[in-house]
Amino acid sequence: MTNTGFTAGIDVGGTKCLAVIIDPDNNIVAESRVPTPRGATALIDMVEAVAVELIELSGGLDGIGVGVPGQMDLSGRMAFAPNLDLGDLPIQQLLEDRLEVEIVIDNEANCAAAAELQLGVARGVSDAVLITLGTGFGNAIIVNGDVSRGAFGMAGELGHTVVNPSGPECGCGNRGCLECYASGSGLQWMAREAVERGETTRLLALAGGDIENVRGEHVTRAARDGDKAAIGVIDRFSWWLALGLANAVAILDPEMVILGGGLVTDWDLFEGRVRSHYDKMVLAGPYRPPLRIEPVALGERAGALGAALSARVHKGFAN
Amino acid sequence: MTNTGFTAGIDVGGTKCLAVIIDPDNNIVAESRVPTPRGATALIDMVEAVAVELIELSGGLDGIGVGVPGQMDLSGRMAFAPNLDLGDLPIQQLLEDRLEVEIVIDNEANCAAAAELQLGVARGVSDAVLITLGTGFGNAIIVNGDVSRGAFGMAGELGHTVVNPSGPECGCGNRGCLECYASGSGLQWMAREAVERGETTRLLALAGGDIENVRGEHVTRAARDGDKAAIGVIDRFSWWLALGLANAVAILDPEMVILGGGLVTDWDLFEGRVRSHYDKMVLAGPYRPPLRIEPVALGERAGALGAALSARVHKGFAN
Repeated sequence: MTNTGFTAGIDVGGTKCLAVIIDPDNNIVAESRVPTPRGATALIDMVEAVAVELIELSGGLDGIGVGVPGQMDLSGRMAFAPNLDLGDLPIQQLLEDRLEVEIVIDNEANCAAAAELQLGVARGVSDAVLITLGTGFGNAIIVNGDVSRGAFGMAGELGHTVVNPSGPECGCGNRGCLECYASGSGLQWMAREAVERGETTRLLALAGGDIENVRGEHVTRAARDGDKAAIGVIDRFSWWLALGLANAVAILDPEMVILGGGLVTDWDLFEGRVRSHYDKMVLAGPYRPPLRIEPVALGERAGALGAALSARVHKGFAN
Repeated sequence: MTNTGFTAGIDVGGTKCLAVIIDPDNNIVAESRVPTPRGATALIDMVEAVAVELIELSGGLDGIGVGVPGQMDLSGRMAFAPNLDLGDLPIQQLLEDRLEVEIVIDNEANCAAAAELQLGVARGVSDAVLITLGTGFGNAIIVNGDVSRGAFGMAGELGHTVVNPSGPECGCGNRGCLECYASGSGLQWMAREAVERGETTRLLALAGGDIENVRGEHVTRAARDGDKAAIGVIDRFSWWLALGLANAVAILDPEMVILGGGLVTDWDLFEGRVRSHYDKMVLAGPYRPPLRIEPVALGERAGALGAALSARVHKGFAN
């Protein structure tokens, strides 16, 4: 164990991997990115290579935090990571076998929440919910000023709460999870449904005439062009997201929702609709101030930064 | 403000009101119970009368905690209490205007959780969910060793998360809240449905031949007699409760569920079914130990005891 005050964070995303080194004042002093490979072995090889590069670059690290898009348990096993198509991976052990540095692994949403809490939009906030709307529905919860990881390291999976038992099948095995609706995949699914029902030719045209090519970005583009069906899809998506927010607020009563992920870029298309549906659904609305919904302040670096912060306190978790 | 080391707790239930005085070692040294009257004025009069009685009895109290079956905000207003048919009551202010003693008001499930955490089944537990299955679905959450009240004092309303948007109307205004199914009222509703569908004559007979008289207790009795439709109702109830547990576990990852309320007496009828459905639904089940579900240790006094403990730390909340 060196003691340089420098740590690194590696955010393993579904498509790319972003790594940072931070100095003792939490400034990012180096950064690198590589595409995320497929398969467990390739993934571990890649993280090792990035880690070795970071160690050389820094001349010695106190620890490396790794954020993964999957559900971790407290023993450092990744239970499942649908966006990497991986399950049951003892990722902490595998990396510790190869590297001479302290490794801390956590869910990427928890990392992002830890970073936003310490350096971003959630500074000084006691109770908050972080949601990342990317391909999936990422989530972390902040309770009493800390990122809560639960009893077994698996808290913060609002996306896998069942909100419609007769809904579509979810990758987790249940039906009608919130993630089936309020996520990039959900948006895509609802868009393809609208195309199948013959409600829109614009959406299909944007996808080159092939329904299998219809993606979330076509919905937002068509909606901006005024396509009614695309606007309908955005409204339906917003309704389900509002339901998820109302459910989270009923249980956790946060003062703020921190929003991240690719869909944030088009948040102006969703916000009014989400708020209007939410206001009708939330429990005891008149007794609450309007819900604060704020985008992540640290952008795409939140996960890597949070992982690096976590590594600073060695296995005890940062925040 | 006296300083006797004695505090009192008053648990205002839907039908009866239970009050205790505790000594500095948290022993119950006096107890009283009265029926809960209807209406806001009668309720405040009753709590005042009980409080005056307790103050006389003890020769001076450091504070009085009041647990209510409704959703409180941090300013001491009760937003709504469906089982008392009350809403928007500034209960703390009304009582402080009448009594010369510090008053602390909290939701009854939070009180029960604080008591179980300090003196009951949840001692030493970091993350837990308390659920009371009575007429409604009461809930409190324990995160990082504390009862979490959220940013505005309103956390812990798992019963009012929407789990089926096309479900029956809930008293809160939404459709298909968990409480519509997993509660005494839910059990009664499902039983009446079974009777209406002509599935059971036994249930109807137990209710004296009048479907409007069919209640939860008839279901459990008929199920013990082997009535298939009653067993079906219990299984359906168990499925929805399991869904609620799986949702809570996905978000909070507790090590324990603490179960209270009237339905606990018949828990043997439900437990196997709840567990079997839960095991199929819970996220990443193989990575978790079996869910600990334990009945409250402090029984019907948990709420009053927790209220008295809360009063000990004056408005700052106990636990």
